[in-house]
Amino acid sequence: MKLLDDFELFGNIAKAENFINRIKDGKFLFSLVISYTETCEIPGITFAGADKESIQYTPPADAEYLHYGNCKTIDKIPMTPDGKPTPALLTKTALESSSIPHIVINAGSKISPQLPFIQTGLSPGKNISINPAMTDLQVSQAVNYGRIIGRTLASITDCLIIGESIPGGTTTALAVMKALGYKAKVSSSIPNNPVVLKNQIASMALDRINSDNPYDVIAKVGDPMIPFVTGMLSAASEINPIMLAGGTQMTAVLAFASKIGFNEKNTAIGTTSYISDDESANFKNLVSEIADVPAIAVNPLLKNSKFPGLRAFSEGFAKEGVGAGGTIIASLLKNRNNSSKFLELAEKEYGRIFTSQ
Amino acid sequence: MKLLDDFELFGNIAKAENFINRIKDGKFLFSLVISYTETCEIPGITFAGADKESIQYTPPADAEYLHYGNCKTIDKIPMTPDGKPTPALLTKTALESSSIPHIVINAGSKISPQLPFIQTGLSPGKNISINPAMTDLQVSQAVNYGRIIGRTLASITDCLIIGESIPGGTTTALAVMKALGYKAKVSSSIPNNPVVLKNQIASMALDRINSDNPYDVIAKVGDPMIPFVTGMLSAASEINPIMLAGGTQMTAVLAFASKIGFNEKNTAIGTTSYISDDESANFKNLVSEIADVPAIAVNPLLKNSKFPGLRAFSEGFAKEGVGAGGTIIASLLKNRNNSSKFLELAEKEYGRIFTSQ
Repeated sequence: MKLLDDFELFGNIAKAENFINRIKDGKFLFSLVISYTETCEIPGITFAGADKESIQYTPPADAEYLHYGNCKTIDKIPMTPDGKPTPALLTKTALESSSIPHIVINAGSKISPQLPFIQTGLSPGKNISINPAMTDLQVSQAVNYGRIIGRTLASITDCLIIGESIPGGTTTALAVMKALGYKAKVSSSIPNNPVVLKNQIASMALDRINSDNPYDVIAKVGDPMIPFVTGMLSAASEINPIMLAGGTQMTAVLAFASKIGFNEKNTAIGTTSYISDDESANFKNLVSEIADVPAIAVNPLLKNSKFPGLRAFSEGFAKEGVGAGGTIIASLLKNRNNSSKFLELAEKEYGRIFTSQ
Repeated sequence: MKLLDDFELFGNIAKAENFINRIKDGKFLFSLVISYTETCEIPGITFAGADKESIQYTPPADAEYLHYGNCKTIDKIPMTPDGKPTPALLTKTALESSSIPHIVINAGSKISPQLPFIQTGLSPGKNISINPAMTDLQVSQAVNYGRIIGRTLASITDCLIIGESIPGGTTTALAVMKALGYKAKVSSSIPNNPVVLKNQIASMALDRINSDNPYDVIAKVGDPMIPFVTGMLSAASEINPIMLAGGTQMTAVLAFASKIGFNEKNTAIGTTSYISDDESANFKNLVSEIADVPAIAVNPLLKNSKFPGLRAFSEGFAKEGVGAGGTIIASLLKNRNNSSKFLELAEKEYGRIFTSQ
């Protein structure tokens, strides 16, 4: 299939090809899980927001932008402090160009988006450098609610794509993977990845762990997104193919899922090449180490863009998030498109945002 | 098709047969819209709850029962004051026996259900005998949010079924239809239908109307469910077949929809024969008067039940609600079943509830 030229497959290659063949002619549904961890309030930990105050608005604003093409809770779409746009721009381009429907799920976001969304009632996670993230009960609740939603959504589509928007989430993901015994190095929304700081925070959180119980581990060092998406995956993968759309944070989901059970045969990770090629992280090895689940990376060719704000993704800013990689993969499959065409559409959307506002 | 023996078709019969043929082999999705109007607090207006205090819990409890098989916000499933069960029992039997997925939408319920649901942020409606139900802005918001949800849900299924749970909703439906110029007589959850009281309340509400604008009419005498479901129908019927599952209240939706626009070709009403045969109401004529939309009524044969609590539906209690008629129709189509088999399953569920609790 010509399309495979645009994808890099890793993990079990035969499984990856098989996964693509199973999903390419079916219906896709994208679910965006928005959440929050107070860990993102630690200075220097994330660029997912123009300043400290605005970080909490990034998840609902990402959701609003996907729906409306602009935001309601803030004036402009989420940006880094120096004006580089949220990866939701890539997601929006992918979804809109391929008419893939999407639904927003609030699993612990501090702020609700101004649009209809699936409500779970889950609370934001605490700052893991000073507190347990959640109680064990909250983790169970998140998993159970994830299961309900995952079962419903998987049963009404042929392939469920799950993405996330949770600032600071790579740090909690790092802590979770370390706590579950994986040699994780993680990606970041910041090009000069603050590895030392992330490891420091993870260590402080890990010191709080006093049991091998994976639910307890997540409660101590995770965030609400991880158990919720794990619950979704666990139930949904029993029904239909599921694509976890993301990088580091989805490997943490995979790590927890491998403890509580899920169907590997129906699971793949979809991401951007900016994650899989990130030398400060070890995404490819991590996925293989955690589970026999294939991964698919797409290169959206943003380094060829005429816009610096799009080229930035290829230079290490934001890299992935809001399900960008997975939804680009789905859009290319559905449209029988290639990455050059996608770049053209992304530039058009970039132009629309930055000239119309 | 043998199945048609179990259905009574009315309105445009050819259209009804065509609608059934288009949906019978596809995927169904049931959406339950829960809402609230303070009109239900008027003594004698509804039996949808064991007592005045518990009526507000009926919508979330219906939703919880569909999901879990029991309720979380109250101890037992919703009942009339003398212990007759909610029509959700029929819906649950239908959905479970045919593995039709469902999703709950909170469009103004006073109490949130303890499960994941689609949140709209809409407020409960006011008591129309003393106040406008909503502001015009709230009506627009409800329609817009309904459109978003309707578009999403219709695009991920082959036939979207929409049901409601809103105690007191037949009174607001009556007022809406009168205000929009239809000679409506409505059904009730009470066998000795409090027609005089309902008409009195509707009249008081109608006195408040001072414009022909349909949005303004809904704001003055409606409830949040009506504009929300109308918005859903309006957007969803442009995409795929939609079955409005209900009686009187869905005719009010149809009345408002015929003012703001929807696709008649993709729309049908599905209900129980207890509604279409109700001599105190005029359901059949009303539907034809409002729009060229077919209606399908199923007789679930509950008068043959060994349980008085099930026979009661055929004797005028509750009759319909929580999408019972529409989901029974879908389950018979999907299972290639008949009403006798359905009765057997409903009795099993009745037995489970009343012996296990």
